[in-house]
Order: sequence, then structure tokens, then C-alpha cells
Amino acid sequence: MTGQSSSKNEALGSQMHALARRLFPICRSITGDGVRQTLSILREHLPTLEITEVPSGTKVFDWTIPDEWNLREAWISGPDGRKIVDTATNNLHVVSYSVPVRRRLSLDELQRHLHSKPELPDAIPYVTSYYSRNWGFCLSQRQRDALLPGDYEVCIDASLTSGSLTYGEFRLPGTRDKEILLSTYVCHPSMANNELSGPIVATFIAKWLMSLQRRGFGYRLVFVPETIGTLAFLSRSLDELKRQVAAGFVLTCIGDERAYSYLASRRGNTLADRAARHSLKHLVGSFNTYDYLDRASDERQYGFPTVDLPVCSLMRSKYGTYPEYHTSLDNLDLVTPLGLEGGFRIVKHAIECLEANQTYRATTVGEPQLGRYGLYPSLGGAQASEQVRVMLNLLAYSDGEIDLLAIADLIARPLPSLLPAVRKLVSAGLLAPSDGHTER
Amino acid sequence: MTGQSSSKNEALGSQMHALARRLFPICRSITGDGVRQTLSILREHLPTLEITEVPSGTKVFDWTIPDEWNLREAWISGPDGRKIVDTATNNLHVVSYSVPVRRRLSLDELQRHLHSKPELPDAIPYVTSYYSRNWGFCLSQRQRDALLPGDYEVCIDASLTSGSLTYGEFRLPGTRDKEILLSTYVCHPSMANNELSGPIVATFIAKWLMSLQRRGFGYRLVFVPETIGTLAFLSRSLDELKRQVAAGFVLTCIGDERAYSYLASRRGNTLADRAARHSLKHLVGSFNTYDYLDRASDERQYGFPTVDLPVCSLMRSKYGTYPEYHTSLDNLDLVTPLGLEGGFRIVKHAIECLEANQTYRATTVGEPQLGRYGLYPSLGGAQASEQVRVMLNLLAYSDGEIDLLAIADLIARPLPSLLPAVRKLVSAGLLAPSDGHTER
Amino acid sequence: MTGQSSSKNEALGSQMHALARRLFPICRSITGDGVRQTLSILREHLPTLEITEVPSGTKVFDWTIPDEWNLREAWISGPDGRKIVDTATNNLHVVSYSVPVRRRLSLDELQRHLHSKPELPDAIPYVTSYYSRNWGFCLSQRQRDALLPGDYEVCIDASLTSGSLTYGEFRLPGTRDKEILLSTYVCHPSMANNELSGPIVATFIAKWLMSLQRRGFGYRLVFVPETIGTLAFLSRSLDELKRQVAAGFVLTCIGDERAYSYLASRRGNTLADRAARHSLKHLVGSFNTYDYLDRASDERQYGFPTVDLPVCSLMRSKYGTYPEYHTSLDNLDLVTPLGLEGGFRIVKHAIECLEANQTYRATTVGEPQLGRYGLYPSLGGAQASEQVRVMLNLLAYSDGEIDLLAIADLIARPLPSLLPAVRKLVSAGLLAPSDGHTER
Repeated sequence: MTGQSSSKNEALGSQMHALARRLFPICRSITGDGVRQTLSILREHLPTLEITEVPSGTKVFDWTIPDEWNLREAWISGPDGRKIVDTATNNLHVVSYSVPVRRRLSLDELQRHLHSKPELPDAIPYVTSYYSRNWGFCLSQRQRDALLPGDYEVCIDASLTSGSLTYGEFRLPGTRDKEILLSTYVCHPSMANNELSGPIVATFIAKWLMSLQRRGFGYRLVFVPETIGTLAFLSRSLDELKRQVAAGFVLTCIGDERAYSYLASRRGNTLADRAARHSLKHLVGSFNTYDYLDRASDERQYGFPTVDLPVCSLMRSKYGTYPEYHTSLDNLDLVTPLGLEGGFRIVKHAIECLEANQTYRATTVGEPQLGRYGLYPSLGGAQASEQVRVMLNLLAYSDGEIDLLAIADLIARPLPSLLPAVRKLVSAGLLAPSDGHTER
Repeated sequence: MTGQSSSKNEALGSQMHALARRLFPICRSITGDGVRQTLSILREHLPTLEITEVPSGTKVFDWTIPDEWNLREAWISGPDGRKIVDTATNNLHVVSYSVPVRRRLSLDELQRHLHSKPELPDAIPYVTSYYSRNWGFCLSQRQRDALLPGDYEVCIDASLTSGSLTYGEFRLPGTRDKEILLSTYVCHPSMANNELSGPIVATFIAKWLMSLQRRGFGYRLVFVPETIGTLAFLSRSLDELKRQVAAGFVLTCIGDERAYSYLASRRGNTLADRAARHSLKHLVGSFNTYDYLDRASDERQYGFPTVDLPVCSLMRSKYGTYPEYHTSLDNLDLVTPLGLEGGFRIVKHAIECLEANQTYRATTVGEPQLGRYGLYPSLGGAQASEQVRVMLNLLAYSDGEIDLLAIADLIARPLPSLLPAVRKLVSAGLLAPSDGHTER
Repeated sequence: MTGQSSSKNEALGSQMHALARRLFPICRSITGDGVRQTLSILREHLPTLEITEVPSGTKVFDWTIPDEWNLREAWISGPDGRKIVDTATNNLHVVSYSVPVRRRLSLDELQRHLHSKPELPDAIPYVTSYYSRNWGFCLSQRQRDALLPGDYEVCIDASLTSGSLTYGEFRLPGTRDKEILLSTYVCHPSMANNELSGPIVATFIAKWLMSLQRRGFGYRLVFVPETIGTLAFLSRSLDELKRQVAAGFVLTCIGDERAYSYLASRRGNTLADRAARHSLKHLVGSFNTYDYLDRASDERQYGFPTVDLPVCSLMRSKYGTYPEYHTSLDNLDLVTPLGLEGGFRIVKHAIECLEANQTYRATTVGEPQLGRYGLYPSLGGAQASEQVRVMLNLLAYSDGEIDLLAIADLIARPLPSLLPAVRKLVSAGLLAPSDGHTER
């Protein structure tokens, strides 16, 4: 990387991190104003982001959109009257989707509504109770251990009433009826890798796509509450998606610096999987591969047999595998400018591979005489140059069925590095596209 | 295993061993009264066992049913007039299918008709001469070495005349036109692993099947003289078998305690192979796998390209691999109650897997909301339980093509352990059987 | 190998080496009288060798037959007037296809037209400039380093004018419309492994084929200038070749003693590949396998997607992998009688496998009674002999789809060793050919 592009990328990482800091304090859940605020801020970057509201009670396949939850405040005050736990300090202190409550109770009674994490005594755990009416507070084990006997007052000033679920959809039309899908979620309160990293990388990918000279694919980026929002989105678009999606990626946990990871689609070898593995191999070399059996995010819906879209996941440290996961320690120290920028680069590279991917066929019977086209060193005897070898391999494997991505894998070179040779061969009429992009 | 079922199984092993002891002394060959006596005793356990007699001279494919052989007595008396070898002591002393003989001869002449096994000097070897008229005696190397020069008298009082070949067939009708075949043989004289273990395990499997709430498969268990009897059976039933057999197992050498073994069908990945490997993997963990190239029993006929039935073999120590094989040392010390009971358990488990196997399809678009059906812990945040994970995997892989056995292999769990979750999902309407049992 | 056949083979190696010595001094290039002289000498061995002349300017696919090049002499004389480099000594001294030149020039100017190989200071490198008008001399680094400043005279007395490209084609008709193709090249001047070994082994294979009782395949052996000659040949015969070629081999670098090598076809598992690997495995055991990615000879044309013939390469030390490659050190010390004889043997074995290969089907339902046909030891009990086992395996795998070559691979035996058993089974009517040779 040149110094210039490096500092450009650092700048990009900083911009992404700045956006993360702005979104971090918002109290998101699967419904409510937190989602709306988040999408509204993303719309500053993506003016054409469409917001969809799906009313409570709407059936989405096997599910029903729940009542909308909005929190004003939630706190516990101790025997001495002092607030000891307060969502004004950290959104994670309240169990998401807690029903309203305001009363006094003993420590024993209170304990039944508390959640902490003994193995991470300083972390506030993240707990939800979306589909079962309940209430509770989360706090660090250390704080919980210090609670004294006595009377406590709890207040959860929240509304849980008919409203709607909100999701955002950003589309860039293509010139073909095939599209690339990126899906990320916006339903977690103040945590950084899971989940702010996903929508932030997706937003900056969308901005980059707007500036990109695209070759045909349309793009659809969805910012959805996990699971229920994904199902709501799918319920409105499934037929279209089944016809159009050539490849898709779930973007999640994509902002820390510790690893790069890939989770396979159910089928395991879709175009999305191939582009993801190819990009990770050439851009970062060593990465974690997870099986579809390891899934626990929106791949569950995209890969479900009745949905069956070619979608895999791109991540840095996968959810559930790092100690800070689903706690207050998953914060903006863990997610860094460099971490976000690495996540951005891998998604960008995978998209560049998809944009460049094409099935060609050689047009000559037998090898062409490259020299006639100015493509061959005039003096034999010496080793044919690497560039000539790449051209001969492109020709030899372009049988109208094997796509560039497969040829790049076969000759162990990054797809983008083949493009100068491809362009020369196409210009010379020696390679011809074979009916449209491949969708394998 | 609970203490109760353990002692129940010990009881089962003891019952099987008792039956073995009763059958052991009978002089079986590929035809004759020994087979009839054996089947008659098995009929005490399986009253509906049908006996078929195929007359000598009948063509069965490329073969012809030979004359029937019955032995009254066979002995050698030495120069001092004392009987030194006598089938009254051990049936193995006579070469099976020996023609009648009664005469005096010198030791030199006698030697040309003797068989022993130098590498196992105390063992009487097992020798046959079914299709070439001959006679001979078998004895231990130690006994043979002690023979003194002089005149000997030999007597083989046997009949080898037109009669019939006898086999037994036990059938349990199913509610579908598909059946499970078990094949075992009843043509070896006093030996225990090869072969009494096979018919004994088959008999007790038949008894268990009679008490089983079966789901649709019919069952056919055949007790046949090896090779010629199998061909006789096939010649009468091949078209029906080709239409109906979903999976089959040859049961042989299935009563010792030293190993568990599986010999693949010719095709190698039939439903029978899959059930056999799955059961062995989960029930015993470590087992020997043999290729079809290693076959030497009735798999030769079932897998022959013009027969081509999905049949593999379940064994403990495979024929030909243990030192006592085809000698008098293959006795009821080698075959034990525990050994027989282990053989029984593996066949039972494979059948249970076949009974439970089914291809399902998920009925919802996207994952169902398990909580609506009382199938999900109400509080998120915590790890979804193992049971939930199993249910989600059952749903995610039930695409109408992959059967339960394959899903069980994929998620590395024994098929029976998935059944409670399958039943819950089917009850909830979330999984639906996909046209009938799978036959892959 | 018996002493007799060993000395017969030594005689064969000596004959091949003698022919190599005779052809070695000829100045070959991709056109010209050197090719004609070479083919004329080969015609002494193969009287029906057909010579084709393709005129300069003829289009062959993407290429055009170049002007014909003939060299009379080429030399450099030094400041003292003495000839220091002269093609009379070694043909490699002139860059092949050099345009005529005769002039005096300074050492500095001369250096721009000299080629040497610093890493092999005693070797004259081999350099060509077929498609770019140029001239030059090749000499050892040691000689080049000794050149003194001063005036030099260079003379290349060559003609480069309209003429033709010459290739030879030897055909043996078959009784079927399928043929075996052998392709080798005749365009390199005085070098031995690359390339005299190829045409010499091909010539002796052709002589052997003439004496062979063949079973149906036709044979076509082509002696072509590499690349351009191959394309010229293909341009005249492609449709026929696509219909008829069942398997083909490029023979190149097949006369040294250091290794045996195989380079896969593009598809990698054609009948040619299977025969080549089978023969190498059983005849020499350990050999080098190269991928189609490693190709640099005429496989480039035969495997090109628009040509797509089932052709792989048989070699001893592959071009480009041995230090003497493309230098004057690739001589008749490197290529030996023993080396050539080994090359001959491997090609012969591969052809014998193709000749013998056939798909059979078993004719009986279930195993036949081998004893009825005199094919089984009459006494059971003992281990069935190896011969019986081979027969039973031939029967058990002959399902009308798997060919003998595949069965031989499956049972890990050389195909020719199976033929006695195959013949017995066919004679007995137990195996029947399944419609013609397989072409898989």
C-alpha cells in the first residue's frame, strides 16, 4: 500500500470510528425510536436510504411484529436513596423489552431480576426478553456483590405498545436484473463490535459504491433489526430476492483488530462463499472459517431451506468467540479505526471480485499468436514472462464455464491482479464474455 | 445404560449363548438333516419361520443344487484297532461332503486324505469338498504327528444322494412395499463365531422385531446355506427383492468380544452402509471398516452387479482375521454372552436408525418462532440450549432431500437422540415428512 | 525381465541411440530443410510416413505459416581474423530464424547480438526469434568473457523467404473409428532430450505397432514443428480428431535416465491420463506428476478449450526442470540407450493398456460356479487362490460401466496381469464385452 492510500485508509477508519462514537449512546432495540434515530443518522451519509415501518401485529411468516418498545429511563435506587444503576449511564443496565415497573422491593426480591456475569466481574451483560413479558436489570458482578440488604426502588419507565418495527434499505440500481445483497443489523444498544461495526462498514461500503463505476449488478443494503427485522424484510421482498440475489454477505462483528472470519452459507460453495474466501485468502492470508453449523445471526434466515439465498458472513472476531461479546466491554476501545478499516477493505475486495467476475471463452482454435497483438516478448528462449503465463492460463481455462474467480483460485492469484491481462485479451478479441456474469 | 437394562441385556446374552450351546453339536453342511434340525430349533423361537426345500438338481442361476449329504458316522481306527478320530467327538473330523468309504489302508495312503494345521497344532481344521467328489479327515497337527506306521481302517458312513437344500425365511409384513433384509447362514458344523453367532443374533433380532412398534418397513430374515443357499433364495425372490429391499445386512462372525466390524456394500454408500457406520460410530466408537474388496461371504452375491442389492455386513471379528477362524478353536469360549449381546445391540441400533429415518422439510419461510410453540427459553442473552440448537439444525437442514441419518451425521449426534426434538417439531407442524421414507 | 528380453531391450536402446546420433547434427528449425532431412531419415524406418508441406502465408487458425528459414553458415571472426564461433561446430551458435547479415562491427556492437548463460558458463544456450526479424549468436559464457576489444566480422548466410512448413504423419488404420494419437516435435537443432528423444521413441513405437496384433484402434503419429506445426496439423484434421481420438500422448524429453514424468491433460482424468498414470505406477512406481498449469509444450494446443483433445504428456525429465535444458549440454551423453529404452517401454505399456482396455459385464445372476468351468480349486477350506480372487473381482466389478483400467486401479494390479483371467472368463462366457471399447 502506498503512503497516500494508507493515510487515506486511516482517514476512512477515523471517519468510521467517529460515526460509531456518535451512534454508540443510542438505546436501540428491535423496535423503537433508537432504531429510527440510528437510521436517521445513517441517512445523513446515504440520502436515499428508505425507511420502512412495519406495524405491530403484522404477520411476517411464522412471526408477528411485536409491540414497540421505547425506554425513557430505568434505574435502581438503593437503601440510602442513591441511584446505583441507571440507563443514563449505560443502556445495557436494563433488560431490553422490559415492561414498565415502579416499586420498592427487598434485595432478595430484586436479585430475581438482576443479571450479571461472574466470569467478567466488571462487565455489564446484555440481556433481552423480546417475546416474553418480563423486566430486569443488568449490572457488573462486582457491583452486584456490593449490594447491601435493605429496600430498593426500581423504575423502568418504558412503553411497550402498538407501534411498528423500523428498517432501512439502500438500493443502487444495476443494469442487469442481478444484485448483491449486504445485510447488517441495528438492534443492539451500546455495543461496538456486535453491532455498530456492521452498519458502519455497510454505510461506508454504500458510499464507496455510489462513487464506483459499476458493471451491472444492482446493490441492496439492508439495516434491519436482527431476526425479526430480517424476516420482515424477507417477507416483503423474498420473490424478488430469490430471482435477483447473485451473492450476499451478512456484515457483523467486523470492527475489531484480532481476526478475520468467514461463516459459510448452508450450501457452502455459492458465489458469495467463493468471493469471500478468495478475498480473505489474498487480502489477509490467514483467517477463521466457520461452518454453517456455527451460525447464530441472520445467516439463519438467509440460508434457511425455504429462503435459500447465497449469503455468507464476513466478520473480524465472530460473535460468541471473544470474551467481551454481549457485554459492556464490547466498546469503542475494542472496535478501532484500524479494525473498521480492515473490515471495510475485505468487503470492498469481495465486491470488487464480484464486479470483475465474468465467464469468458477463448475465441481462437488453439492458442493465439500473442506476438501478433503485441502481447508476447519477441525473443524466445528466455522464460515466457509471468504476464504471458497469466494470459495463456486465462485463455486455456476460459472454456465458457469456468469463471474468472475460479481461474484466479486455480492459478493462486488475486482476481484483481488478472484484470490487466483480461482487458488486453478482450481488447485483442481473444477472450469473449460468455453470456453475462456467472451466477455460480 | 441403567442397571436394569444392563442385567436385561446380560440375560439376553445368556439366552443367546444357551441357544448356541444347543445348536453347536449339530453336524450342519450346505444340505442335509443338520440344517433341518437347526431350523427346527430356531422355529421354537420363530413359529412362523418358513422352511423351503429346493430339490437336488434344481438350477439356481449358474449353479445346480447338489445331492444331499448326510453323515451317520466317520472314524479312523489305528493299527491297534482303537478309534483315534471320530465325528462322535467333533463334527469337524470329517471333510464336509465326503463320499462314503470303508476300507483299510496304510499310513502313507491315509496321509493323502488327512488335513491339519501346523501353525495351530491343537486345532482341528474345517475343510469342505462340496463340488468335487472326495473324502478326507481333519485332525490336529499334534495328533497327526503321533500317528504310527501300520494299517488303518477308515469309515465314512454318509449318504450323498438326491434330496434337497433347505433354507428358512422369516417375514414380518410392513405397511409399505419396502423391506429390510437380514441374511445369515446355517451350513457350518460345530463352530461358534463363524457361524452360530449369525443365526443366533438374527433369531433374537427377529424376536425383538415381533415386539417392536414398527413404522412401515417389512422385515425378511433368511437363514440360508452360504453361497448356494443364498443363490437358491435369490433365484426365487430376486425381482421382489430388487423392488423392495431398502437396506440389508449380512450377519456373520458377530459373537466374539474382540472387535466390531463393518464390510461395505459394493456401492459403498447405500442406506445400509450409512446406517451401519452411523450405529457403529455412536454405539461403539472405534470399529474396523472393510472394503468390498475384502468380501468373502454372502456379500459376494448380494453385491454382484446383476443382483445389486444395498447390503453390507455387520460383524464383530471378521472371518479370516482371527486365528481360530475355520477351526475347532472357534468355539463357545470364543463366542460369549457379552459378545453376542454386543452383536445384537449393533444390529438393533442400525434397525432403529432405519425405522426412525425420514426426510423432512421445514414448513415455515425462515426460522419459526420457537417460543410460540413453547420450544424456546423465554429469556435471550443466555446461550440457546443444546435442545434449541438441535431443533434449529433439524429445521435448517430439512430441505426435503437430506434425511435424518444424514443430518445426524452432519451434526455428529446419534439419530435416536434427535427423535424427541423431531417429534416436537412435527407436532408443532414445523417439520413435515417429505413423501415417505427416504431410500437413499 | 528375462536376460533375453533385457538384451533385446538393450539392443533396442542402442538402435534408438544410433538413430539419435545420426539425427543430432542436423540444423532443424520450425521450417526448412533440416525438418525435411529429419523426416526423410525417419521414413527409412516408417516407409508410409506422409510428408505435408504447408506454404508460407497459409493461415492456421490465429497464426500464419512464416517464411521458410535455411541456414548455410554462420560465424564470427575475431580481431585476428580467426573464426571464433561457427555453426559448422554447433548449430546452436546461431539464433534460430536469424536474418542474413554480413558485416564488421565493434565488440560493443556485437555484444548486443550475443546470448550466453552465466549460470552454465560452458553451455551454448538455445535461442530463437521466429516471429520477430532479428539476428544473433549464442556462445558459452566462458568464450564470451574471453572476447577482446576490436573489430569483428559476422556472417549469417541464411535465407528467410517464402517456402513451406513441413510435417510428417504416420497412420495405421484401425477397424474402429477411434484412434490413439502420438505427437512429437522435430524443430530443435542439435539437442537430445528436448527433442530428439521424442521423435526417436515415437519412431520405434510406430515400428512396434506395425508388428502388433492390434484390436481395433487406429494410430496416428505426428512429427511436427512445435506449436506452429501442431496448429498446422490441427487446422487440417481437427474435426476428424475430435471425432476419433480416444487418447493421445505428447512425447517429449523422454530419453534421459533421471526420472519418469507425466503432465496431465486440462481435464485431468481422460482415458489418456488414466492409462499414463496406471502404466507409470506399475512399470516404474515413483514418478513426477505435473499439472496442466505446468504445461509448456504441445499440450498447450491439444488441451486448449476450443481443441479439447484427451491428450497428456509422457516424459522422463520434464523440459525446464533439468539444468541442461535448452543448451548444448542437452546432448547424447545425457540421453542414453537405457534412457530411451525406458521411455519406449512406458509408452508401449500405456498403449498396451489402451489396447486391452474394455468394459465388460458379468453374464450370470450372482457369482458363477467357477468350478464348473475348471476355474476353481476343488477343495474348499484353503484360501481361494489369488487367481480366483482376481476372477471374482473382475466379475464383481464388471457392471458394464467400469472398464478394466478402472478395475485394475481398484484392485491395485497392472492391467496386463489381469488379461489371462479376463480371457478365461470371456471364454467361459462369464464376462461379455459391453458395447465396444470404453472411451472414458
